[in-house]
Amino acid sequence: MSQATQVSGHVSADLYVEVKNFYARQMRILDELDVDRFTETFTEDGSVEHPHRTEKVSGRTAMRAKMHSMLPQYQGLVTRHWFDHFLIEDAGEGVLRVTYYSLVTQTNTQDEVKFFSSSSVEDLMVRENGELKIRARVILRDKP
Amino acid sequence: MSQATQVSGHVSADLYVEVKNFYARQMRILDELDVDRFTETFTEDGSVEHPHRTEKVSGRTAMRAKMHSMLPQYQGLVTRHWFDHFLIEDAGEGVLRVTYYSLVTQTNTQDEVKFFSSSSVEDLMVRENGELKIRARVILRDKP
Amino acid sequence: MSQATQVSGHVSADLYVEVKNFYARQMRILDELDVDRFTETFTEDGSVEHPHRTEKVSGRTAMRAKMHSMLPQYQGLVTRHWFDHFLIEDAGEGVLRVTYYSLVTQTNTQDEVKFFSSSSVEDLMVRENGELKIRARVILRDKP
Repeated sequence: MSQATQVSGHVSADLYVEVKNFYARQMRILDELDVDRFTETFTEDGSVEHPHRTEKVSGRTAMRAKMHSMLPQYQGLVTRHWFDHFLIEDAGEGVLRVTYYSLVTQTNTQDEVKFFSSSSVEDLMVRENGELKIRARVILRDKP
Repeated sequence: MSQATQVSGHVSADLYVEVKNFYARQMRILDELDVDRFTETFTEDGSVEHPHRTEKVSGRTAMRAKMHSMLPQYQGLVTRHWFDHFLIEDAGEGVLRVTYYSLVTQTNTQDEVKFFSSSSVEDLMVRENGELKIRARVILRDKP
Repeated sequence: MSQATQVSGHVSADLYVEVKNFYARQMRILDELDVDRFTETFTEDGSVEHPHRTEKVSGRTAMRAKMHSMLPQYQGLVTRHWFDHFLIEDAGEGVLRVTYYSLVTQTNTQDEVKFFSSSSVEDLMVRENGELKIRARVILRDKP
């Protein structure tokens, strides 16, 4: 094995893949607009924050209400979230800090694909009964 | 190691990377419009199905014919497939079920990049002489 | 374990994740337009080549000058690089050859996301004091 192929750094490949699987499942659920199953990927007191519109929704009940109120905007469209550049860090006390890029596209009834938004996201994750859950999500919309 | 960094779940990181490498190679071949090498990434009886246009092409010979007939549409463009949110599952009897998001872009001679399509894909993979091959691909074009 | 789930191939999952982490960090630095920290992700004699405009910049000092001269073009925009289809190979003599697809988007002050470019990239990486660094980058802009 040559020098460049020696591995250094602290991210376990198995944990990396498990976290990626979490997002692969969570985004299918979100893009299918399955509000109930989506909120179950958060802890009971989990929060979603959009600082650019100074909005923070805390707890599954509030999250469900908020999402149901927004559903009409997503009718007649297929929305897809595309993620990249994951960094996964142990934040201590059983918390993982996961940050990534997020690009959102939408396909309309005329087969046109359009950009919806570009953001960076920071999630704090914990494990409940063995399953990863989001405790806090902050979505930073790209703004020059 | 804190609680959140303990790995659970059943996807092996090494298999995950091998599958990702398969797609990295297959997409280079597809985007280079190398029809012969592309069909070799399928089993001899491999199939590609586009349910939205009720089309299913079975076997490498039919696949080659179909792809050659479509090549004129791709002239004067660089096509690129972008994949995300892989889920890799053991479907039993030596078969892997791989699902993912697929976004297709095209660059024209004026340096303009445009969306071509957004889809989700389901592949059934098997191993032949140690190499992964697609036995069946179903491409579900996004349609509200 | 069924036949299809047996792993073959030579990419170590841990090295794969380490390389992905390198790019996750390098792209955050680049998209923040942090020229100094960006050039430090290259070796002192590292180079960036754009064959489509027959340009090759060699060494951190020249790279910094070149990037500073280009910064005005990026004002008023959030630029993001999206990568896919990584292939990581041991090129021998302590060098890794990493190739991938690269899509660049920009968000303007009107919240519009637009494509900037689509390319394929080839990097040669080495390890210096345990850290991965780029020795040579070649960016091949998509051109039909």
